[in-house]
Amino acid sequence: MARVSQEHLDARRRQILDGAARCFARNGFHATSMQDVLAEVGLSAGAVYRYFRGKEELIGAIATEAFAGIRSAFEEASRATPPPTPDVLLGAVLRLFLEERIEGADRQAFARLIVQVWTETLRNEQLAGTLSEGYHGMRVAWTRLVTAYRENGLLRADVPSDHVARTLIATAQGFIAQQALFGDVSVEVLEDGLRGLMSMSMPEGDVPIG
Amino acid sequence: MARVSQEHLDARRRQILDGAARCFARNGFHATSMQDVLAEVGLSAGAVYRYFRGKEELIGAIATEAFAGIRSAFEEASRATPPPTPDVLLGAVLRLFLEERIEGADRQAFARLIVQVWTETLRNEQLAGTLSEGYHGMRVAWTRLVTAYRENGLLRADVPSDHVARTLIATAQGFIAQQALFGDVSVEVLEDGLRGLMSMSMPEGDVPIG
Repeated sequence: MARVSQEHLDARRRQILDGAARCFARNGFHATSMQDVLAEVGLSAGAVYRYFRGKEELIGAIATEAFAGIRSAFEEASRATPPPTPDVLLGAVLRLFLEERIEGADRQAFARLIVQVWTETLRNEQLAGTLSEGYHGMRVAWTRLVTAYRENGLLRADVPSDHVARTLIATAQGFIAQQALFGDVSVEVLEDGLRGLMSMSMPEGDVPIG
Repeated sequence: MARVSQEHLDARRRQILDGAARCFARNGFHATSMQDVLAEVGLSAGAVYRYFRGKEELIGAIATEAFAGIRSAFEEASRATPPPTPDVLLGAVLRLFLEERIEGADRQAFARLIVQVWTETLRNEQLAGTLSEGYHGMRVAWTRLVTAYRENGLLRADVPSDHVARTLIATAQGFIAQQALFGDVSVEVLEDGLRGLMSMSMPEGDVPIG
């Protein structure tokens, strides 16, 4: 038997995951069979099952990779001092993660895949665990950043950092939902929207910052 | 044949929709059969098919009703002069639509149903149309409100109202996604988070309002 390099194994794994993601995005997770995935990647069942035991493992691996991608985009974008404001940071993360990696026409398909993964957690506990862990990591990273905003006098003191963190994650999730549903939303929309919100005067009777 | 009052017809329709929503939320749209719905509502096939021809019609009617509910909650909550700020308004809408209508334990199930509907638009064009129309209505209503914020000097002038409107809708969608995924998010989180964002100083070099 020929020796196979790690590089070759990684490239093959990549090829299978990309093909599976294309199938799921195109036809939905449930309407896609392993047979469809094999046809898409042009490999034999033996070759594919060596890496993944089935659709559940494939979707789990795709979700894990997506979180790793978002995480590294977040870390790259948040490295500046002082930390970029939420509009700038979320814009940069979405650009790095979505716009630079994925062609225009495929972006809606990818967003649809993410929404399908959300749905799939209903009946797939392992996937639910992967997502729970991934979002927890994002929440911790954002909470740290929001605390830094406050310490730099950029944010009022009387709201929990975690609540601001969750709200910022919600804007990104809603952006994905709109991309999946309508396919017509650019990162600029979210950047502008956050910039607008950040400019809003506080309601009367509220305590100003500082 | 006995004459049937409109009231009776409406109540029966309500009974079927509520039962179907419970089934879909519990087991997912795909794993639910019309047989399951019949068992849940305790009616014969003849009685149910008189109102709805199948699962697709049921999910479409549920989505249409949900948008009507959100719309009326939005209208009720936005009636004040001056218009309530986004944190107050979104909080009020989510309370009216979600917390006051739906028991705690069922809220995650209902949020899951919404996320399933998003997924379902992939293969159901009629449902996609219903959602597209519903979101369009929300976008128009929010855009009008954001324009009022600006006219009242509450918002910077250089961001399109529609972008702020979409971002606010995105926070609500993300709230639903988090409720569906984790079930542990209260309306207060979003209110606090928006309040925090609204308090953020503008980045250097930005033009202040007014």
